[in-house]
Amino acid sequence: MAVYTQVDDGALEAFLAEYEIGMPRSFKGIAEGVENSNYYLETDQDRFILTLFEKRVDAADLPYFISLKQHLAAKAFPCPRPIPGRDGAALRELCGRPAVIVSFLDGLSPRQPSRPQCRELGAGLARMHLALEDFAMTRANSLGPASFQGLWSGRAKTADELETGLASEIEADLKDIISARTLSAHLPRGTIHADLFPDNAFFLDESFSGIIDFYFACTDALAYDLAICLNAWAFDDAQRASGLQYSYSHGAALISGYDAVRPLSDAERAALPLLCRTAAMRFFLTRLVDWSDTPPDALVKPKNPLEYAQRLRFHRHATGPADYGA
Amino acid sequence: MAVYTQVDDGALEAFLAEYEIGMPRSFKGIAEGVENSNYYLETDQDRFILTLFEKRVDAADLPYFISLKQHLAAKAFPCPRPIPGRDGAALRELCGRPAVIVSFLDGLSPRQPSRPQCRELGAGLARMHLALEDFAMTRANSLGPASFQGLWSGRAKTADELETGLASEIEADLKDIISARTLSAHLPRGTIHADLFPDNAFFLDESFSGIIDFYFACTDALAYDLAICLNAWAFDDAQRASGLQYSYSHGAALISGYDAVRPLSDAERAALPLLCRTAAMRFFLTRLVDWSDTPPDALVKPKNPLEYAQRLRFHRHATGPADYGA
Repeated sequence: MAVYTQVDDGALEAFLAEYEIGMPRSFKGIAEGVENSNYYLETDQDRFILTLFEKRVDAADLPYFISLKQHLAAKAFPCPRPIPGRDGAALRELCGRPAVIVSFLDGLSPRQPSRPQCRELGAGLARMHLALEDFAMTRANSLGPASFQGLWSGRAKTADELETGLASEIEADLKDIISARTLSAHLPRGTIHADLFPDNAFFLDESFSGIIDFYFACTDALAYDLAICLNAWAFDDAQRASGLQYSYSHGAALISGYDAVRPLSDAERAALPLLCRTAAMRFFLTRLVDWSDTPPDALVKPKNPLEYAQRLRFHRHATGPADYGA
Repeated sequence: MAVYTQVDDGALEAFLAEYEIGMPRSFKGIAEGVENSNYYLETDQDRFILTLFEKRVDAADLPYFISLKQHLAAKAFPCPRPIPGRDGAALRELCGRPAVIVSFLDGLSPRQPSRPQCRELGAGLARMHLALEDFAMTRANSLGPASFQGLWSGRAKTADELETGLASEIEADLKDIISARTLSAHLPRGTIHADLFPDNAFFLDESFSGIIDFYFACTDALAYDLAICLNAWAFDDAQRASGLQYSYSHGAALISGYDAVRPLSDAERAALPLLCRTAAMRFFLTRLVDWSDTPPDALVKPKNPLEYAQRLRFHRHATGPADYGA
């Protein structure tokens, strides 16, 4: 939650002169997004978000992300629409960084998603998958199972410092996940969001109003996107004292919302426990990396990996899709 | 630049139910304000800013700040207007903190103020002083010269670590400022902003469009507010390599803009060098306190006090108001 790049008056003025979006009336840094600098930009024509891409995003991936949003917007799927400059290019440069202006999306991100919101989100995710069926570009999932050993390597000690015995748990999980990963290779593939946490989804009251932040999007099993959402939306941290609990009713709502728009195959349904376990491992490992790479006295605390160790325990003991409400 | 308090869905919904401002359509943390948490709030009726007051603001002062903005708004002076709830009270509570919703103010804060903007700012400051002439509430300036010895005490070593010999410079300045401080006691007094840096002033193109962030406002010499602005707006850090320079043309524009709306008396003009020196000392000392109280490896770096030591050197050698363009 930060603004890394300060935009000077002259730089902003020169940048906006490349567009036909009117004169600026407001420009405020937004405390959202861990990876990039985001500004609320209002002109006499409309409201926008200006994003400057910081070093954690690979500039070579940006045309993919921009095209993906353009494709969705052209299909009237609610997401930020990249605004082209006068020369037609949406991806530009500002303050020495790649930068883009996108349309402003109405809606609020839920902090404690309700069951109806989970159903709406499932349906929204399925609509996104369908809208991207004919999106031609591809991008490998750089945080898939093939990356797990590299992320884990040298971090067993950190895991055991977080919780005694955690390292051997994780190593057993990694073996299971990596040996089983070909099971999902035959599942329907397509473009997935891969990071659809509640802060990346917008709602107006209980109605889904759109999706933002596509900077982990990639080509993978569609049901894996659903598995990420089950991890992100269907664990109840209201009861954090007794450990995170899977909320069967939230999970079932999410799955049925998805299934109503894009019916899940039996194979996708059967793969859900493994896909959920894989997704939990991905977020456990990246959080563990951030945890061990951040100095202990830093003011910005990384997210605790243990929340995902708790999810892994649930997935490890799941006997089948019925445990998830599928 | 942070959002300290996260507002839960239920808390926001319950809070907005106390108002008649419509249903929320957007809610985003803003990376502005060091002291408080600020959110951009859009409803189906209008745009607003929601502020939660964190511990650095004394809750006992809040009614003063709210009344001051209500007074200004009632006089059509451009500033955030506190929005009352259904019961008429603007100062409420959210997430255990005092909270207020204010109207959204259009405009951009300049990072490198231009000379025309300095003139506009001077005129805007004078308009604010006139609009507050009949504001009945008072608040002592808790960061006036009487506070300086307390802020300085025990920090000579930190000053000398920043720059060898700085501590003795500051001690000589403090003696001068404190012995001369009664000179300004006879100047016209009133309600001052006391923190009118460029990030607290808004412009639309080159035209002044309003003032925000009144949380240092207090009762003091009106010309002291002008002196604070001269420190904040009329030193040129484009040439930072060779030290900060006073920009005579920016300063003269600011003073003449002010004088055109509220003519300065000879006594106010004569007091400007001392008032400027006092203002520079106030910001030097509070920055020095933040500097020595922040751990060296913190991610959020405090502002460097040396920028104000450089201003103090200019003020120390000023021979009269003509050096400022007054």
